[in-house]
Amino acid sequence: MPIPDRALTDALTLAEELFARLRAASLDPPGVTRASYGEGEAAAHAIMAEAARGLGLEVTADAIGTLRMVLPGSDRGLPAVAIGSHLDSVPHGGNYDGAAGVVLGLATAAALIAAGRRPRRDLLILGIRAEEMCWFPAHYLGSRALLGLLPKQAPDTLRRVDTGRTLAEHMRDQGLDAKPIREGRALLRTDRIACFIEPHIEQGPVLVEEALPIGIVTGIRGSLRYPQAVVHGRHAHAGAVPRAFRRDAAMAGVALISALDARWAMLEAGGADLVCTAGILATDPAHHAPTKVPGLLRFSLDIRSLDAELLSEIDHWLKTEALRIGDARGVEFDFGPPTHAAPARMDAGLRDLLMRAAMAAGVPAKEMASGAGHDCATFAGVGLPSAMLFLRNRNGSHNPDEALDMPDVAAALAVLARMVAELLDQA
Amino acid sequence: MPIPDRALTDALTLAEELFARLRAASLDPPGVTRASYGEGEAAAHAIMAEAARGLGLEVTADAIGTLRMVLPGSDRGLPAVAIGSHLDSVPHGGNYDGAAGVVLGLATAAALIAAGRRPRRDLLILGIRAEEMCWFPAHYLGSRALLGLLPKQAPDTLRRVDTGRTLAEHMRDQGLDAKPIREGRALLRTDRIACFIEPHIEQGPVLVEEALPIGIVTGIRGSLRYPQAVVHGRHAHAGAVPRAFRRDAAMAGVALISALDARWAMLEAGGADLVCTAGILATDPAHHAPTKVPGLLRFSLDIRSLDAELLSEIDHWLKTEALRIGDARGVEFDFGPPTHAAPARMDAGLRDLLMRAAMAAGVPAKEMASGAGHDCATFAGVGLPSAMLFLRNRNGSHNPDEALDMPDVAAALAVLARMVAELLDQA
Repeated sequence: MPIPDRALTDALTLAEELFARLRAASLDPPGVTRASYGEGEAAAHAIMAEAARGLGLEVTADAIGTLRMVLPGSDRGLPAVAIGSHLDSVPHGGNYDGAAGVVLGLATAAALIAAGRRPRRDLLILGIRAEEMCWFPAHYLGSRALLGLLPKQAPDTLRRVDTGRTLAEHMRDQGLDAKPIREGRALLRTDRIACFIEPHIEQGPVLVEEALPIGIVTGIRGSLRYPQAVVHGRHAHAGAVPRAFRRDAAMAGVALISALDARWAMLEAGGADLVCTAGILATDPAHHAPTKVPGLLRFSLDIRSLDAELLSEIDHWLKTEALRIGDARGVEFDFGPPTHAAPARMDAGLRDLLMRAAMAAGVPAKEMASGAGHDCATFAGVGLPSAMLFLRNRNGSHNPDEALDMPDVAAALAVLARMVAELLDQA
Repeated sequence: MPIPDRALTDALTLAEELFARLRAASLDPPGVTRASYGEGEAAAHAIMAEAARGLGLEVTADAIGTLRMVLPGSDRGLPAVAIGSHLDSVPHGGNYDGAAGVVLGLATAAALIAAGRRPRRDLLILGIRAEEMCWFPAHYLGSRALLGLLPKQAPDTLRRVDTGRTLAEHMRDQGLDAKPIREGRALLRTDRIACFIEPHIEQGPVLVEEALPIGIVTGIRGSLRYPQAVVHGRHAHAGAVPRAFRRDAAMAGVALISALDARWAMLEAGGADLVCTAGILATDPAHHAPTKVPGLLRFSLDIRSLDAELLSEIDHWLKTEALRIGDARGVEFDFGPPTHAAPARMDAGLRDLLMRAAMAAGVPAKEMASGAGHDCATFAGVGLPSAMLFLRNRNGSHNPDEALDMPDVAAALAVLARMVAELLDQA
């Protein structure tokens, strides 16, 4: 059921105001800074709460600071439809990463109210804490805490990178309480949630390159990461040591990474979802020279896919290939400790609903994978039907140049409001 | 004509003493230090001069400090046979790099004298100055100065890396005079030299690996070097940016280096003389991360061959391949300033003479390229028939662990003395 244009226009004005207020409250040139459990994040929560109260929503915060803003439905016994994202940012980051999801949630509520709708189910808008890993080194800290999934010792062992103080201390500063995390207690009952929808700016260039305002996420890529891999060879004279006697760590590393690149190209041509990155390559600055065969190469690998099986296949292939190259070239590969993140599939029904809403609203959209991690992965991970809507954004994310244009916010809002209105009325 | 064993044994004892005295006079644990135009080098020259006088040789030093030790021949009108090398070392280096050539020259003279030979030609033993580039940043400084090939401004523009003082100042400290260099004047008349022979430790592992005491050098590899190449791409999110939209500097650099490696393997299999090294690989430490597509890669290339045409072919291929990869991957290669050193072919007649002397002396030997540069390249470069004899040496060079065993010195001496005796008697 379409939402009248005027209702959408009013809601868009609210969104625009909220973005402006958010920016003003957390300005830290260049960009904005909203540290996890820090001042900028608290200011953002306050702005959202005030706007929600202004709309007449029920506004509460739980012990760990998650902001809950509810547009009540007519049948409060039914599980709620949830929209949300995080409100923290990286230091000197952009204004939209995270915040856009909460603002769009409020704008959706505003549009429904302006349209005079009284939905059947509750619409729950979540302002989640602490998603950006640059503050506390943990994935999805706020959403995992919310669902009781964070390790119990986390409040006392995780320290904020900039202050060196613990999560518990920073929570106390904000008048919050780490006790539920220490007890492993969920603060959100998943049986009270019908589904979770996270609108978010796209952090890559796909929508810009393809001139599309929105994307419908098929899934959040899982990752296999080796941040600290090393090739051990032997330093030698660049002129005096023939090929057969070399143990060239750099050439061996190059051979492995180049083989991975070729395999990636082949798998992608066959339709696989995959991205591979060697973000760090470094011979040893204490010993390297143009005239020395390098005895050591440090490198990192980051491999992501929607397909958990493919990640595990590539892991196996990497090890086999490294042994083969190591044997042939007299070097040893030490991959170091890996990190794994499981892919999260988005719910097929919700994706379908989003695509139909986009078509009905006349908004061009495409289905695409999310290469970056999002709180939505936490919700999908516990089996809640989950979906993500990407908004076109220029210049990537985690930098002051994030750029989200209001016509694209309007397009996303039109699709989201239509889809959520339908969900809210489901029996 | 064979030199009697007793004469060789006496000469070997002298060589052993000289190595011991050299080490004692320049000890700088770990290793020895004989800086170009510094104390350790001066001490080495004094030891050699004293030993030469003890053998009854004519001993002089020229204005720039080249030590000339002459065993007079019966026909002094004929051009001399010259043997020599340099007497400086890297800081905390080994005792043999350079010095072995001068010691073997003196030991050859000693063997001829002990055998009661009176050669027809003069045998000139040269103690050359300043070959190690780590002190003054110039190739073959001492031998080029000797032949009047150093740029005239060099005494006043070249500064020793450790002191910051000029070459002229350091020469003056040693009672020497930079004037001939400033005038571009040769101090050695090449028409007074029949040929130049440089014995030197092998700086690679070939003789050790192949269990051979000596090697006969076919030529000194020339080099094509790009010490400061850069690939410029664009930093991006490692998860969110698909392959098609990346401008990955590291993957592009890896593609080029890997293609070079494959080309090298192919050319070597076809019989070409070639070594290729990417000594430095470095993403930008200020911006790189395992989760970022690297926007920049610094790398170096060092490519050496006996074949100047092959070097120039590879240079052309590199540029073409870099353009192709750059186009395909949206990056730009900037190779930075190259350095070139021309290959130096060793004289076929002298090589043949050395090989026949080795066979006659029952010393197993192989022909091999020199990957490192040597003063001999300066002499070959002006058209003097030149040759190098490599001695087996463990653990590479330019480090305290250089290891030259006396039986290998004995083998080299037997070959050299036999060959030189023959040369000295040529009309």
